Amino acid sequence: MVRALVRDAAAERDYLPDPSILTTDFRSIAEDRSIGLVAEVMGGVDETGERVLELLRSGRSVVSANKQLVARRGGELFAAASETGVQLRFEASVCAAIPVIKVLRESLSFSRVHRVLGIVNGTTNFILTRMEHGDDYTTALAEAQRLGFAEADPAEDVSGADAAAKMAILATVAFGTRVTLDDVWHTGITQVEPLHMRAARELEMAVRLVGAASLVDGRYDVRVQPAFVDRHHPLAGVEGAFNAVMLQGDAIREITLEGPGAGGLETASAVVSDIISVIGTTGTGFLQNDACWRELERLPHGDVVSPFYVHLEVDDRPGVLADVARRLALNEVSVARLVQHETGGGTAALHVVLHECRSGALGDALAEIAQLPETRRRPTALPVISDRGVPTL
Amino acid sequence: MVRALVRDAAAERDYLPDPSILTTDFRSIAEDRSIGLVAEVMGGVDETGERVLELLRSGRSVVSANKQLVARRGGELFAAASETGVQLRFEASVCAAIPVIKVLRESLSFSRVHRVLGIVNGTTNFILTRMEHGDDYTTALAEAQRLGFAEADPAEDVSGADAAAKMAILATVAFGTRVTLDDVWHTGITQVEPLHMRAARELEMAVRLVGAASLVDGRYDVRVQPAFVDRHHPLAGVEGAFNAVMLQGDAIREITLEGPGAGGLETASAVVSDIISVIGTTGTGFLQNDACWRELERLPHGDVVSPFYVHLEVDDRPGVLADVARRLALNEVSVARLVQHETGGGTAALHVVLHECRSGALGDALAEIAQLPETRRRPTALPVISDRGVPTL
Repeated sequence: MVRALVRDAAAERDYLPDPSILTTDFRSIAEDRSIGLVAEVMGGVDETGERVLELLRSGRSVVSANKQLVARRGGELFAAASETGVQLRFEASVCAAIPVIKVLRESLSFSRVHRVLGIVNGTTNFILTRMEHGDDYTTALAEAQRLGFAEADPAEDVSGADAAAKMAILATVAFGTRVTLDDVWHTGITQVEPLHMRAARELEMAVRLVGAASLVDGRYDVRVQPAFVDRHHPLAGVEGAFNAVMLQGDAIREITLEGPGAGGLETASAVVSDIISVIGTTGTGFLQNDACWRELERLPHGDVVSPFYVHLEVDDRPGVLADVARRLALNEVSVARLVQHETGGGTAALHVVLHECRSGALGDALAEIAQLPETRRRPTALPVISDRGVPTL
Repeated sequence: MVRALVRDAAAERDYLPDPSILTTDFRSIAEDRSIGLVAEVMGGVDETGERVLELLRSGRSVVSANKQLVARRGGELFAAASETGVQLRFEASVCAAIPVIKVLRESLSFSRVHRVLGIVNGTTNFILTRMEHGDDYTTALAEAQRLGFAEADPAEDVSGADAAAKMAILATVAFGTRVTLDDVWHTGITQVEPLHMRAARELEMAVRLVGAASLVDGRYDVRVQPAFVDRHHPLAGVEGAFNAVMLQGDAIREITLEGPGAGGLETASAVVSDIISVIGTTGTGFLQNDACWRELERLPHGDVVSPFYVHLEVDDRPGVLADVARRLALNEVSVARLVQHETGGGTAALHVVLHECRSGALGDALAEIAQLPETRRRPTALPVISDRGVPTL
């Protein structure tokens, strides 16, 4: 028996299904023992989660496109699936048709992936690409909404929450340890300003909202934040609403998967591929099992090491640069490149690219610099992603 | 029981295995019924093929890194595997650790992939990248050999035969129909000259050895040849010894996988992932089966449609351009862009970018142009790969 649960069976639809398969009653699916597999594409966490749990506990495999559900309640769902020996697959929950979940779980499970870098939100990437071409944030967002790339309420995308859920899932699968949405430190693109865009162009970089999951000495770190990406880095070439995920490991060096990260047909393609994989592996093996097999600790936030871009606005007079440099040096932060511009009114803008340092040390240095009398504006810092092969965030 | 078949058990090795697992006798593996899975990484087609057949027929699953074997004898091997219900996997045979076989077979099997574009040979991509930076072919090849990217005898790489075997395998899996090495039309990079490099730069393109498999009205076409790739196309950014494969289909639009396409650890990673997949799916399902389920016809060679770059050298005098343009137009080939340079001695070089046309029609036009009295040099043509989203070859 095939059934489709819908809100309104009489709604107009592009595709006209046999009316007998439409139902508005979840019980008619949950209680029909001839149904062995359910694809969940309805969204939501609480009620949807209870329904998915009920299906798994009653011995039905589930394929889900629901990133918030998997990122928040993945552990619970997988425990239910393994109790009854059914499968839970979730390819469509991350980057639609880009098959990164299957690749991580089945192709790279023994290749010790230690870093995942991704542009996993098409809305923000579209907005940043537009800002690169001169739009301000408000105009770029309005254009994204007009073209259907952004919701009327864009909060989940622009805050980084959508990308954070995807990175939680990717980190879970890549590292084999449970990472939930709450474990992902994230910031969005609302603080990105035209001045960052200009600085990036000057430094031959692009601004991207980058998700980064790293394994550092047996602990994990997962974060989403705007970053400066070197023009030659594969992530810098990801334009518009496209997504890309780069997987780095000892044996594989780096493998990048790029494609459309959203869309109805693209998501449907991932749902169908999971259905195929369930049917193609049912009853044996272990590829269907929960990907978690260990419990790693989270790395303290300030211990992540990366090169950074720092933007400062200071009084344009002798001695200021020395003051700033001393605060950086005292915190063991060293400067790789520095560009200074007069901005009028006795103020200078400093664009500083730093060598690798602990983000905590940089935070301390910037807090001190913010207190200097000659500082005119709160300093901002963004991680830098540079040459392919040694990207860090 | 674990055994490793080697040529010389006493040879020096970086990794020191328990000497008891090394053997020089294939029979000690073939006749040991406790061995259920064999990884074939020895290369060769005839003797190796017989051994793999024997293993499959006696009920052992086989994982192979051998592109020539799979591209030439895949049909025979899969028939043997399905007779005894064992698996044959071959991820490592194409682009090492880039998991394109698993993605095509398991994630995109129902997404109607209709085109595969790939840079699938790292040696030639390294050489072309060097030539882009000013080396001539001989110098670039010598450098590739010095760095270990090219064999002492580079014929298989530079002739396109290595890439052709990989494209035969990719087309087989993408389209579900058997494509053998003999079905792939291929040409290598030995004819690529500095003048092509200069023309590409001037047109904001890069020269790449591109494998292209297309499904056109139910027939297939697979070819490997040097192509002009638009600077903004993802394949143009693939530098050095890296590989990339772009998969295009109605539901997925386009998905690109990029990474190192060769190397010992990278190949080992793919072999291990296949072993995991065999163990994870043994005894049920169908993901392990032969990917072929239909028999498509090959598209006639001249029926492939693409934009092209054409290089002409002609007498530098009035009327010549009109003659050339007329030959093109009579064959329904139309010009998109044209750059003319005086090259001295009364000769002009024409760099012509054509709109999409049948390659057969272009061949006819160029044959006519070659006969013109004002033509000084045999015209050469390369396909052009342009904007992402509508690449053609």
